[in-house]
Amino acid sequence: MEEPNENPGNKISRRKLLGGALAAAIVPVSAPFAKYVQAGVVAPADPTKVQGIPPGTVGKRSPFENPVRKPSDISSRAPLQDFFSTITPSDLHFERHHAGIPNIDPEKYELLIHGMVKRPMKFTLVDLKRLPSFTRTCFIECAGNFRTGKAEMTPQDILGLTSQSEWTGVMLSTLLREVGVDPKAKWFLAEGSDAALLTRSVPIEKAWDDAMIAYGQNGEAIRPAQGYPARLLLPGWEGNTNVKWIRRIEISDDPYMTREETSKYTYPVNGKIRMFSFEMDARSIITYPSFPHKMQRGWIEIRGIAWSGRGKVVKVEVSTDAGKTWYNAKLQEPVLEKAHTYFRFLWQWKGETTEILSRATDDTGYIQPTLKQLVEARGADIGGYHMNPVTAWVIKRDGEVLFKPEKYK
Amino acid sequence: MEEPNENPGNKISRRKLLGGALAAAIVPVSAPFAKYVQAGVVAPADPTKVQGIPPGTVGKRSPFENPVRKPSDISSRAPLQDFFSTITPSDLHFERHHAGIPNIDPEKYELLIHGMVKRPMKFTLVDLKRLPSFTRTCFIECAGNFRTGKAEMTPQDILGLTSQSEWTGVMLSTLLREVGVDPKAKWFLAEGSDAALLTRSVPIEKAWDDAMIAYGQNGEAIRPAQGYPARLLLPGWEGNTNVKWIRRIEISDDPYMTREETSKYTYPVNGKIRMFSFEMDARSIITYPSFPHKMQRGWIEIRGIAWSGRGKVVKVEVSTDAGKTWYNAKLQEPVLEKAHTYFRFLWQWKGETTEILSRATDDTGYIQPTLKQLVEARGADIGGYHMNPVTAWVIKRDGEVLFKPEKYK
Repeated sequence: MEEPNENPGNKISRRKLLGGALAAAIVPVSAPFAKYVQAGVVAPADPTKVQGIPPGTVGKRSPFENPVRKPSDISSRAPLQDFFSTITPSDLHFERHHAGIPNIDPEKYELLIHGMVKRPMKFTLVDLKRLPSFTRTCFIECAGNFRTGKAEMTPQDILGLTSQSEWTGVMLSTLLREVGVDPKAKWFLAEGSDAALLTRSVPIEKAWDDAMIAYGQNGEAIRPAQGYPARLLLPGWEGNTNVKWIRRIEISDDPYMTREETSKYTYPVNGKIRMFSFEMDARSIITYPSFPHKMQRGWIEIRGIAWSGRGKVVKVEVSTDAGKTWYNAKLQEPVLEKAHTYFRFLWQWKGETTEILSRATDDTGYIQPTLKQLVEARGADIGGYHMNPVTAWVIKRDGEVLFKPEKYK
Repeated sequence: MEEPNENPGNKISRRKLLGGALAAAIVPVSAPFAKYVQAGVVAPADPTKVQGIPPGTVGKRSPFENPVRKPSDISSRAPLQDFFSTITPSDLHFERHHAGIPNIDPEKYELLIHGMVKRPMKFTLVDLKRLPSFTRTCFIECAGNFRTGKAEMTPQDILGLTSQSEWTGVMLSTLLREVGVDPKAKWFLAEGSDAALLTRSVPIEKAWDDAMIAYGQNGEAIRPAQGYPARLLLPGWEGNTNVKWIRRIEISDDPYMTREETSKYTYPVNGKIRMFSFEMDARSIITYPSFPHKMQRGWIEIRGIAWSGRGKVVKVEVSTDAGKTWYNAKLQEPVLEKAHTYFRFLWQWKGETTEILSRATDDTGYIQPTLKQLVEARGADIGGYHMNPVTAWVIKRDGEVLFKPEKYK
């Protein structure tokens, strides 16, 4: 099997590596991943002396594990620092709604496709499930997925509006062939069944490329918070265009200029307003170590996720000296298109104050920019959408890990 | 994107296909996937007129969806017929225990590695998580995963003791290098923390190949029913050797001949007893349509899963005429080693009585046998383990789908 990546700057042997990590022997109370132990939960001193509980209809989490999202009125942020890999458990997928989560009866659900088509049609959920199906694993990320401002922020606080699932459904192109799209069509409107009737205009090319109507998430029915019974999936495109609870698609030759694409999801670039910026740019974040982890000296595996809305991540570089030197991290196979990709990099921390950073490169050649480069490209009035700067964690001498917030306004 | 597979025997056009499927317009009450609607669950007539519920710390299933396993005292069978793809939701993963599910405090957990080693060591959970990590998606299947006997059986009833997860942990080879294994070692004993102290002997080659100590499942901490806080993962090998709640590994030059590998998990082959049959043979099952689905005439996408403990599935053939003719099904990419692989095949059912079957071929050239071939190879006293025959569904004229149980004893 695969060997761990070795840091060329340190010329380590495997023996040295493991001896270093384990010989320390002292396990601190503030150990990584241990913070979810709930007060009052007790396990038998010797579990082999107690008959265990029998299987049930569903298998629950350990009482010692309690990963949760951070909800507000309109969103809920996924605990990226708690994930070991790239599938987001369905109940921990981030949420961002415009009028809450509707309660929809799957037997009454219908998807209408009309507008510039030969045969307007309504599809029930049973219709959608009978048609040829397709499965793909990809991320969905909110266009406004970046927060900064203080040192005491976790990956969840900074970038918790991205998640990944294995989605199953019917290709939108299959449905469009059924209704017969006018060759002059250029756009379609997607409308949700929520009380906001969230609507977005989408170029028709995306429908012929890889758009799906998804009804399955991680093997089971899609969860209400992700669009039950069916949502639009536009792999790699900003989250709000992946319209949840989709009930209507209207084919057109022009965009509709809806509220969400005019008053929202636009941002200033060099004094002008940018609209219809669909693709999510390549980015990455180190999720371990991160605030509030407390590090020990010795070997540590730096871990994180990288992704691009344009294709595959081909490279993630890690710097452990505040950006002076960069090394290639190891990418977990299989690396999929438009998908969170897990990266790992072995590093020996000798107790110095430093900064650790990661930057992603995708297969279009795009390199994740610094905040300075973003401001240079877009101007000083840079907005809150599509902000994908390289982010840094500051390592203190005592092992404290803090986010390094950079000002940009 | 990918095109649906077309049935060469039918020479269909896509237009004909979709017209056929949808023009029927009549959606039967016994529609597939609709059976989980619970009595008393009511949704508003127009969800767009009601403010939805706000996000929470976790996102629950729709009240209209209630997939459950079928538990007994010692096992719980996964609802294969409800899954749209290959990830098994963690709370629906099959279970098979020998003394129930132990309750283990992760802060007290230790894994001892000793025996023919230079440095016997104990690893805490924090130690395991600090070491270089690895992620892979693979199935785990119980060696006794086959039931037959009557027509009214679902895929869950027949083959529900297989499931798939994205597992994360540390390679066992990493730990063995740390303790320094004697070159004369040939086997290791794996022991669980359950009240059965389940133990199995495993050839040391598997440790150097792809064995892992897994602590992550589908992105989060492994569930108690799957071995929290850590289990042995032996990709492709029979389920019981993937010892859950692993607490001890003892290195040896001989197998230990434990109760589980002598009185159980052995089976007669031509009058002798076969032991240590670790690898799970290639197999497949059609999960849609299956009992108790009721089919309508027209185009239908036959769907199912195929897997092999020896490597990749390279081919799944489907027959819709009781085994006379076989066509290649489409395999959902990415096809992974030792992993459930989703297959799909378009078929036009014209109302005839028939049988539908699937058979898998893996990259060693092994072809899933018929029950007759299994009996010929192993003798008439064929046992209950490693039974992987081609299974058939009988289609009745009225669209009823029934399992075809074959006698073998």
